[in-house]
Amino acid sequence: LRKGFPEVIFCQGKTVEQVAQIFYRLCQASEVNVMGTRATEVMYEAVKQLVPEAAYDSTARIIMRRRAQTYLHGLICVCSAGTADLPVAEEAALTCELMGNRVERVYDVGVAGLHRLLDRIAILRRANVIIVVAGMEGALPSVVGGLLDKPIIAVPTSVGYGAGFHGLAALLAMLNSCAAGVTVVNIDNGFGAAYAAGLINKLAGDQH
Amino acid sequence: LRKGFPEVIFCQGKTVEQVAQIFYRLCQASEVNVMGTRATEVMYEAVKQLVPEAAYDSTARIIMRRRAQTYLHGLICVCSAGTADLPVAEEAALTCELMGNRVERVYDVGVAGLHRLLDRIAILRRANVIIVVAGMEGALPSVVGGLLDKPIIAVPTSVGYGAGFHGLAALLAMLNSCAAGVTVVNIDNGFGAAYAAGLINKLAGDQH
Amino acid sequence: LRKGFPEVIFCQGKTVEQVAQIFYRLCQASEVNVMGTRATEVMYEAVKQLVPEAAYDSTARIIMRRRAQTYLHGLICVCSAGTADLPVAEEAALTCELMGNRVERVYDVGVAGLHRLLDRIAILRRANVIIVVAGMEGALPSVVGGLLDKPIIAVPTSVGYGAGFHGLAALLAMLNSCAAGVTVVNIDNGFGAAYAAGLINKLAGDQH
Amino acid sequence: LRKGFPEVIFCQGKTVEQVAQIFYRLCQASEVNVMGTRATEVMYEAVKQLVPEAAYDSTARIIMRRRAQTYLHGLICVCSAGTADLPVAEEAALTCELMGNRVERVYDVGVAGLHRLLDRIAILRRANVIIVVAGMEGALPSVVGGLLDKPIIAVPTSVGYGAGFHGLAALLAMLNSCAAGVTVVNIDNGFGAAYAAGLINKLAGDQH
Amino acid sequence: LRKGFPEVIFCQGKTVEQVAQIFYRLCQASEVNVMGTRATEVMYEAVKQLVPEAAYDSTARIIMRRRAQTYLHGLICVCSAGTADLPVAEEAALTCELMGNRVERVYDVGVAGLHRLLDRIAILRRANVIIVVAGMEGALPSVVGGLLDKPIIAVPTSVGYGAGFHGLAALLAMLNSCAAGVTVVNIDNGFGAAYAAGLINKLAGDQH
Amino acid sequence: LRKGFPEVIFCQGKTVEQVAQIFYRLCQASEVNVMGTRATEVMYEAVKQLVPEAAYDSTARIIMRRRAQTYLHGLICVCSAGTADLPVAEEAALTCELMGNRVERVYDVGVAGLHRLLDRIAILRRANVIIVVAGMEGALPSVVGGLLDKPIIAVPTSVGYGAGFHGLAALLAMLNSCAAGVTVVNIDNGFGAAYAAGLINKLAGDQH
Amino acid sequence: LRKGFPEVIFCQGKTVEQVAQIFYRLCQASEVNVMGTRATEVMYEAVKQLVPEAAYDSTARIIMRRRAQTYLHGLICVCSAGTADLPVAEEAALTCELMGNRVERVYDVGVAGLHRLLDRIAILRRANVIIVVAGMEGALPSVVGGLLDKPIIAVPTSVGYGAGFHGLAALLAMLNSCAAGVTVVNIDNGFGAAYAAGLINKLAGDQH
Amino acid sequence: LRKGFPEVIFCQGKTVEQVAQIFYRLCQASEVNVMGTRATEVMYEAVKQLVPEAAYDSTARIIMRRRAQTYLHGLICVCSAGTADLPVAEEAALTCELMGNRVERVYDVGVAGLHRLLDRIAILRRANVIIVVAGMEGALPSVVGGLLDKPIIAVPTSVGYGAGFHGLAALLAMLNSCAAGVTVVNIDNGFGAAYAAGLINKLAGDQH
Ligand SMILES: Nc1ncnc2c1ncn2[C@@H]1O[C@H](COP(=O)(O)O)[C@@H](O)[C@H]1O
Ligand SMILES: Nc1ncnc2c1ncn2[C@@H]1O[C@H](COP(=O)(O)O)[C@@H](O)[C@H]1O
Ligand SMILES: Nc1ncnc2c1ncn2[C@@H]1O[C@H](COP(=O)(O)O)[C@@H](O)[C@H]1O
Ligand SMILES: Nc1ncnc2c1ncn2[C@@H]1O[C@H](COP(=O)(O)O)[C@@H](O)[C@H]1O
Ligand SMILES: [Mg+2]
Ligand SMILES: [Mg+2]
Ligand SMILES: [Mg+2]
Ligand SMILES: [Mg+2]
Ligand SMILES: [Mg+2]
Ligand SMILES: [Mg+2]
Ligand SMILES: [Mg+2]
Ligand SMILES: [Mg+2]
Repeated sequence: LRKGFPEVIFCQGKTVEQVAQIFYRLCQASEVNVMGTRATEVMYEAVKQLVPEAAYDSTARIIMRRRAQTYLHGLICVCSAGTADLPVAEEAALTCELMGNRVERVYDVGVAGLHRLLDRIAILRRANVIIVVAGMEGALPSVVGGLLDKPIIAVPTSVGYGAGFHGLAALLAMLNSCAAGVTVVNIDNGFGAAYAAGLINKLAGDQH
Repeated sequence: LRKGFPEVIFCQGKTVEQVAQIFYRLCQASEVNVMGTRATEVMYEAVKQLVPEAAYDSTARIIMRRRAQTYLHGLICVCSAGTADLPVAEEAALTCELMGNRVERVYDVGVAGLHRLLDRIAILRRANVIIVVAGMEGALPSVVGGLLDKPIIAVPTSVGYGAGFHGLAALLAMLNSCAAGVTVVNIDNGFGAAYAAGLINKLAGDQH
Repeated sequence: LRKGFPEVIFCQGKTVEQVAQIFYRLCQASEVNVMGTRATEVMYEAVKQLVPEAAYDSTARIIMRRRAQTYLHGLICVCSAGTADLPVAEEAALTCELMGNRVERVYDVGVAGLHRLLDRIAILRRANVIIVVAGMEGALPSVVGGLLDKPIIAVPTSVGYGAGFHGLAALLAMLNSCAAGVTVVNIDNGFGAAYAAGLINKLAGDQH
Repeated sequence: LRKGFPEVIFCQGKTVEQVAQIFYRLCQASEVNVMGTRATEVMYEAVKQLVPEAAYDSTARIIMRRRAQTYLHGLICVCSAGTADLPVAEEAALTCELMGNRVERVYDVGVAGLHRLLDRIAILRRANVIIVVAGMEGALPSVVGGLLDKPIIAVPTSVGYGAGFHGLAALLAMLNSCAAGVTVVNIDNGFGAAYAAGLINKLAGDQH
Repeated sequence: LRKGFPEVIFCQGKTVEQVAQIFYRLCQASEVNVMGTRATEVMYEAVKQLVPEAAYDSTARIIMRRRAQTYLHGLICVCSAGTADLPVAEEAALTCELMGNRVERVYDVGVAGLHRLLDRIAILRRANVIIVVAGMEGALPSVVGGLLDKPIIAVPTSVGYGAGFHGLAALLAMLNSCAAGVTVVNIDNGFGAAYAAGLINKLAGDQH
Repeated sequence: LRKGFPEVIFCQGKTVEQVAQIFYRLCQASEVNVMGTRATEVMYEAVKQLVPEAAYDSTARIIMRRRAQTYLHGLICVCSAGTADLPVAEEAALTCELMGNRVERVYDVGVAGLHRLLDRIAILRRANVIIVVAGMEGALPSVVGGLLDKPIIAVPTSVGYGAGFHGLAALLAMLNSCAAGVTVVNIDNGFGAAYAAGLINKLAGDQH
Repeated sequence: LRKGFPEVIFCQGKTVEQVAQIFYRLCQASEVNVMGTRATEVMYEAVKQLVPEAAYDSTARIIMRRRAQTYLHGLICVCSAGTADLPVAEEAALTCELMGNRVERVYDVGVAGLHRLLDRIAILRRANVIIVVAGMEGALPSVVGGLLDKPIIAVPTSVGYGAGFHGLAALLAMLNSCAAGVTVVNIDNGFGAAYAAGLINKLAGDQH
Repeated sequence: LRKGFPEVIFCQGKTVEQVAQIFYRLCQASEVNVMGTRATEVMYEAVKQLVPEAAYDSTARIIMRRRAQTYLHGLICVCSAGTADLPVAEEAALTCELMGNRVERVYDVGVAGLHRLLDRIAILRRANVIIVVAGMEGALPSVVGGLLDKPIIAVPTSVGYGAGFHGLAALLAMLNSCAAGVTVVNIDNGFGAAYAAGLINKLAGDQH
């Protein structure tokens, strides 16, 4: 169905053996990129036994078998504010790349220091889609959405404490965003945001 | 900023006088479409005094002053399952049209009667973006998302009762959707879904 | 009271010693099947000291002492979508069997890949009752319920993350199911679903 | 699909005109029972214009066009504790009857006066399925389930106040029921409980 | 105790007669300002019978009997984004004034149009305390807090819909604000914010 | 103030050193009973170094230094249904005893097996107050309250899983109890229930 | 069972006719006090037709037919802080009286003005039980409980706004009370608090 | 921007290496105080390698590099009730000191023992701002706020159990406080409270 797209395994909740077997099987079956999200180091070790060319990104928690691929011309930006949001931001960014998108990372841009965000506005304007990842700065997608007229995909993260309620505060803030053009995915779902962004970027084609 | 886009007023929470004055002012100021969402019949009467050419769609609850406009080639589909979801679905569909998008309505397609949905698959495949509106059938975006490889924008509605908790059940179901490509907006936010869909359809340009 | 039914211990929250003692006592007291749900490997080791014929299913987390039993003619199907839902699905399936029901497992059938579900429709139609186990695919019971006119017992699982809220999203989705014929048990309660399904299958008797 | 079953309209959220038109259309199309749940008096008046033989039960809030029907031999009991729970209990009981089930009402049996429940135990034992409707007495299904080895379908109602949270307290109590054999439907969903009970009673056939 | 402060009545939940009597009694007892918050037009009419010099602000919903007063030199700013937030913003602003503070209103400054906020930065910088009132723009206090090094008192409002959950989303967003210096009061509590701001402004004395 | 009452330390959240020091100090300061609730084995070891006569009840998780005491004539009953509720039930029972009350334990009486409860009715009737401890059987206080005309203190426990929500389901069920005479304490608060029961039993004096 | 106690009808959720009929029937059947809680003026008019001697307290919302009764010697105090809490406080106080208890009302004693509470300490000390009713002052039972060594029954009310969440904030505050001796009933349940207080006062007998 | 203020790192969610590097960099870059909140012992060890003069407060969980500083004349009081609240109270107190404020700790003052609080009233009156830290005693800020006419910053803590819901009960209690002058920060956010208090104390200048 999804021609040219990577094969994906959601590793969380599966045993190490299940992950390794499924990963191996998918690699045998086709020549597209194969990736496993929410993967642990231990899962990677097991995969590597069966698929020696597999690599692991420990921040994004992704196991991957990459194949030569052509990239779309369109650009996706991934923004985030806090250091602790990086795993989710990187899950998004790396997934975008494995789907054949060019990605620009715009990190460490928080609402409390607006100038850092405004300094990066030029690169944001060049993107077809912007993914905004934030836990304690649930305000970020609103601000980004107010500056740009492009689709924004907001990813709340479970980073924070207390009344952050494991990402609920950020999720609600993003859903109530007044800035039109913002849509939202599940808490910590960097993969899902990337997948939707990739579909949009593909629609945008080569014209930008 | 948003060239060619309609001017929009969110009428809910404003007094009748405020709505009429702002609507009038926006009509004077430019020649784009002007629209007011969440508007009551009474607000419309007041607007009509000042802007005689204004029209009102009582299902979508939108007041509008339309101007001749050119339409994008790309198509947006709006799906819904239940009769009670129509106001939100129409808010989405009419907003899309006022933004210059061609819209196909695919209504009365529920999960409990899958064949009705499958019968409409051809038209769904022709769309660049699909907006799925559902209250008691929170499952619908997952099913649509599983059938298509296009961006899906899911709109939970407050329709339902009991453990629907005014749209919360549908919202959570949509956020947990396993089908990649689904993003979500606020409960009953047909406008926001349309706005994001319009941005995507514009990106897609004339190439489809 | 419950003639022919197994004796059941809910092991979670009991100490290893308590589990072993109660299991032993029940085995001494009668010749029906004896089973302990939510049992750990360690509990099993302790039980085995006292009841050497006891067996353990580590996926279903059930300790059991089985006796020769006669099976009802009627069939119960257990459906699930995700690999991580297997422990709950197996708790349901094995409990059904220990109660004397014939069981068919219909696993790996998700909403995002409808055809896999439709491919199994014949076996589902042969069942008197269908148990549907799902965490991230809360939509599954609605879809199954829409295809069949049999009682469906839906089991939400705590599998998932973020706005899944440990099974709450799936629970609410299932309660709001528009497809008539769906009833729901507690999150992760594979045992309870099986028990209710067993009572229904017994009512259905031998006539199917 | 559902041979012999009534055609059903969920009237809540539809306009009076929509209800009347749909009801009329269904009556023209077949000779089965036709029923509309959550219907107001005003809706009934509109239906009566088009379908003079239609009747209305104002407690159950059901509009119906009944046809001569044959009844199953098996019995369904509907239990409830409080006077304020009657609308939901009657929605359940009348739906059962319109589906061709014999129904026994066991009302005014609360947990605070156990003897009234125990006095009715004989009739409860004769049923194939028991529907238990309760708002402030969320404990009732547990008690009934402990006395009987039949499938129990629990319906929480929104009756109560304060920490009843519009049925949430009863819903949670019922889901946590330790008495095996209890399954649950949405708050106030008397129809859904009846539909599931009817499917079970049909399975049970004539053998009881 | 609170010398020079107005006497205050919280009118909501009191009968019209109770409000009028208490207001009258307080006016008789002293020569400070007397104010009643959350007051209806009808309450005002009753008060006016007994205290002819009383005035009413229908946006702020405050009844007041003002006395000549001296003003503190320090300034309090009240910011808000949406028209529907005005009643709460005005409750805050008018309370500040009745406590003897000079107030500057900085309205219609939203996150989606940052430049409007940045245009007003000079006046914000002159304030000792800034009250930020927002319902759908829960991000506003974070942004304001990031621009200034003054105490910010954030007031979430119940304005919005759906996943705004009557002010909960804004409340949580404000509590999670990363910008240090932000503290929060109850949803819609313009009075409480003003009272705290007044205490701070009084501490700041005449030195600014 | 509380003459004759034990001195109490809430150990949870304190360091081992803090517990030992406070316990020692209280023992030095008076000759009443001294007790520490929510205490770990490790805390007990540290206390024992300083207060050799201290004892530890590992089910109730209470460290105590007991003194000869006189007992009130009145009786307190502590009921519970499940084995996993024992720690809370024993926290209640032992606290009652350390306060000088005679206590009768009525354990393993669940709603699903009413007869076991009815078998113990005579002893329950002799009590001045009944403490009912339950997690998955939130219905138990309603049933006990319906059988007796004595004050009932209900203690929800965090035992259970899924929609038990760590005691919330039991808490809500108990608060909504229709049986008059039931009051409720915090989840798992066996101590608080005992303290209130002790105050009541003391009021009842010797006359029963 | 409950000798000498009034007969009680919970009128909320019953029709006017049901209330009148039940009230009449209970008056015919015995010579004890008869009372209906949560009754409207309209219900009272209907009752009066059938039971001319019935009276109505519009603050407590109680219909009653009183009979000469003897009073217990022991005293119950009912405390409350806010004017808006009076209906619940009076429901409690009047219920206590109809059960034969002497009652002292200690109203308008809030945490923000501690001295008013301390001024009434003598009367509070004379009571056997204290009922504390509070909505926005959820702290009150803790403070009262800290001053006295008597059983305290706390009644949260739905008075307040915003993050009061219709009584939830007060309920949680009361459940977490550190002052031992406090137990809690449902939000707004003045009747339930009175009933429990009455049972305790009866236990206390004439000895105080 | 914030002249004279310490540089701050929020260590939670960062890796040990990230913390050490950022701390080192900030120390190199300026001569102000540098502090890291929510820091573990292990993080401190890593920091010490790079910044030998760094110190660690294990109760407050703060790593700091202190520089000679001048103190403001104004006083900040930090109140708390329970031993388990000390880490948050100390996070607040030490942050205040590192910002150049004089701090008085008023610990072990609970609502259940009012006299201990009243004994300390003189020192509380001398403060410009009072920070009140409480988990199970959510009532404390109300009581303190009622005694003083100074800004109160309330910090709910996650200390407690059951219906404390990890600080939610305290948070809601504090937001509903009737005592004017109380504002609230996130659960466990001692740092944020201190920062806001510091801004206020700075405004108050030297005049007190
Ligand atoms: N991080 C993620 N979050 C949510 N869904 C995911 C994630 N990673 C993969 N998926 C989905 O999981 C599917 C594969 O899951 P599975 O069938 O369990 O191997 C993919 O096709 C994606 O749709
Ligand atoms: N996984 C489960 N979830 C909920 N209830 C269960 C489960 N397993 C067993 N039970 C119930 O727990 C009862 C035994 O509880 P116990 O006597 O505490 O071991 C059984 O009769 C079942 O009704
Ligand atoms: N305000 C109230 N809140 C809760 N329960 C009440 C209230 N008033 C009466 N009740 C209870 O309701 C029972 C009567 O219920 P009913 O038979 O439905 O009228 C009484 O015996 C009380 O236990
Ligand atoms: N305990 C804390 N809770 C919330 N925010 C904090 C805390 N400690 C520091 N911060 C904020 O976090 C900022 C630093 O964040 P970061 O750059 O991620 O280290 C500081 O400027 C503070 O505004
Ligand atoms: Mg935008
Ligand atoms: Mg798709
Ligand atoms: Mg079906
Ligand atoms: Mg049963
Ligand atoms: Mg700031
Ligand atoms: Mg009773
Ligand atoms: Mg006390
Ligand atoms: Mg104060």
